[in-house]
Amino acid sequence: MSGSLPIALDAMGGDKAPHSVIHGARLALREYPNLKFRFYGDSAVIEPVIRKIKELRDISEVVHTEEVVEMHDKASVALRQRKNSSMRLAINAVSKKEACAVVSAGNTGALMATAKYVFKTLNGIARPAITATIPAHQRRVVLLDMGANVDCTAEHLAQFAVMGDAYARVVLGLEKPKVALLNVGAEDSKGHELVQSAHQLIKDSMHQINYVGFVEGNDILEGTVDVVVTDGFTGNITLKTAEGSARLIFNALKDAIQSSFWAKIGYMLAKPAISVALRKFDPRRNNGAILLGLNGIAVKSHGGTDAKGFAHAIQVAAKLVEQDINNKIIEELKQTAIKATVVSHSGTVQPLRVSETIN
Amino acid sequence: MSGSLPIALDAMGGDKAPHSVIHGARLALREYPNLKFRFYGDSAVIEPVIRKIKELRDISEVVHTEEVVEMHDKASVALRQRKNSSMRLAINAVSKKEACAVVSAGNTGALMATAKYVFKTLNGIARPAITATIPAHQRRVVLLDMGANVDCTAEHLAQFAVMGDAYARVVLGLEKPKVALLNVGAEDSKGHELVQSAHQLIKDSMHQINYVGFVEGNDILEGTVDVVVTDGFTGNITLKTAEGSARLIFNALKDAIQSSFWAKIGYMLAKPAISVALRKFDPRRNNGAILLGLNGIAVKSHGGTDAKGFAHAIQVAAKLVEQDINNKIIEELKQTAIKATVVSHSGTVQPLRVSETIN
Repeated sequence: MSGSLPIALDAMGGDKAPHSVIHGARLALREYPNLKFRFYGDSAVIEPVIRKIKELRDISEVVHTEEVVEMHDKASVALRQRKNSSMRLAINAVSKKEACAVVSAGNTGALMATAKYVFKTLNGIARPAITATIPAHQRRVVLLDMGANVDCTAEHLAQFAVMGDAYARVVLGLEKPKVALLNVGAEDSKGHELVQSAHQLIKDSMHQINYVGFVEGNDILEGTVDVVVTDGFTGNITLKTAEGSARLIFNALKDAIQSSFWAKIGYMLAKPAISVALRKFDPRRNNGAILLGLNGIAVKSHGGTDAKGFAHAIQVAAKLVEQDINNKIIEELKQTAIKATVVSHSGTVQPLRVSETIN
Repeated sequence: MSGSLPIALDAMGGDKAPHSVIHGARLALREYPNLKFRFYGDSAVIEPVIRKIKELRDISEVVHTEEVVEMHDKASVALRQRKNSSMRLAINAVSKKEACAVVSAGNTGALMATAKYVFKTLNGIARPAITATIPAHQRRVVLLDMGANVDCTAEHLAQFAVMGDAYARVVLGLEKPKVALLNVGAEDSKGHELVQSAHQLIKDSMHQINYVGFVEGNDILEGTVDVVVTDGFTGNITLKTAEGSARLIFNALKDAIQSSFWAKIGYMLAKPAISVALRKFDPRRNNGAILLGLNGIAVKSHGGTDAKGFAHAIQVAAKLVEQDINNKIIEELKQTAIKATVVSHSGTVQPLRVSETIN
């Protein structure tokens, strides 16, 4: 996409809003100088700040609203009763073509429900999936669904595999990403009916994907594959556990270093090398998950992040717009349908289980 | 239990067997001097080693068999065609009252299937659950099921809650352990039908348990509760992801330390303090998971562990025998049934959903 990249920002969402949002916008320009911003929220608070930032002054527009989605609002309440909220107006801007994408650090459930309602799902996708890359051993790994759908069918998982494949090609620049289903063992016979059916469906109908079968929990961060597909229940718990585990180790090390004089000295010496090594685990550098599978790009930022973290979420949105993620998914889904009807490993015509859900 | 504690050991199970098993037995005596051992396996290999270890010489018996369960054997094959294997004979020893518990580092699926077949489940328990404690922030946490049951019903999860409660009281010495269900959010409305039904069932019928509701993935290692209950699919993936996450951080730090001269010096200074802090994460100190809910104690050791790790698995078995874990579960299940029929928060008679599965 040439020219400018207008992004709609929910300026009131997140613990440190609107400052994290405004300064995040400023920082995001370093990587994407063609960004423009539409800030949605209380103009009395936002405008004075923007006026002082010369990088933002000429490329920003503020759309005033005093309504906000609260963190405790139920998704249904946000959807029905917050029609003039900063979040809702920012989402509407994308469907009105006033912006290419929306970024919000607000209430996750509200953002999911509202974006799904306003954008609708892509043709061929039944459910959107929360998707992001996470730092693993010597590579980044795409994980989906991170929590949008606690109940999934095999067809949903197969569609997630297509979306994850497209995401890895676009965001990680891989030609043939290795795509896998998360399971309790790598053998074909392992797991419950859901993963068994999804496994068969992907193998039978999605020959355009480099599907490598099942992987286990430890494989995610060992980086044995590029895309890990799972249901939103497992994905959400897995991601939060991985974060919790990393935090536990960091805190234990921090306590250890504080516990002795020599350890403190030692840490000071090792600090430069350690800081470099741990940079990739910085939550701010991993901030920004897309609600993938919708007719519009909506990126969720962590609610507690600062300007640097919010900037990363904006950059994720910009990259997905530039790389035209949604058309790539649609193209790939078409291949699935065609291949599934025309060819199979056994030479017979395959049942159209995936394409049935496409049309 | 007074007097000696005879333990049956599958001397041929595990990558480093039989040496890890024999020396593990020797090391386990340090904490439990009243242990006795029955080693099952190739006596031509085992006996010469034992004869050289004076602590073991007089308290060990070797039962010869040349049959072994291979790591690639399917559970069904192990059960039907390995009736004279070291694993099977060691399990049989418990049902014949020749030993109080069995410990094996062999094929997990085979051990689960065989132990379940030989021991049968406890009265009131439909399915056994793989259970162990894991190191969390400032406490140890009981996690179950770690992978025995990829499909669970609400009744299974409710029974796991009772077993986990008894396990935490026995192994962690807690009077009123906080028991929680793993979910994607802490609010009552979150999650899929399975956790919703289990939540209701535990709240309605299990007043003897200090049930605190839902926790999220990050809560496991933050140590917000003592017992985390989940299905075997989620539990297995969660545990392996947590281990993978810890390993990723350790490896990144190791590389960082190797990357510069000053970092190496710094690490040497900090090493004593760090070693102490990280000791609790040593996989060997966390080795040993019980297949909880059977009429007999079967502890699974990690297949790749060494003597120190295997010793820990034996000590887990010894503790569970001494503390009479199974009778405590049975007692607690009885309370559930009685309370569920007699009293409820609303004063009405509760449906006997749990106790129906008990009898």
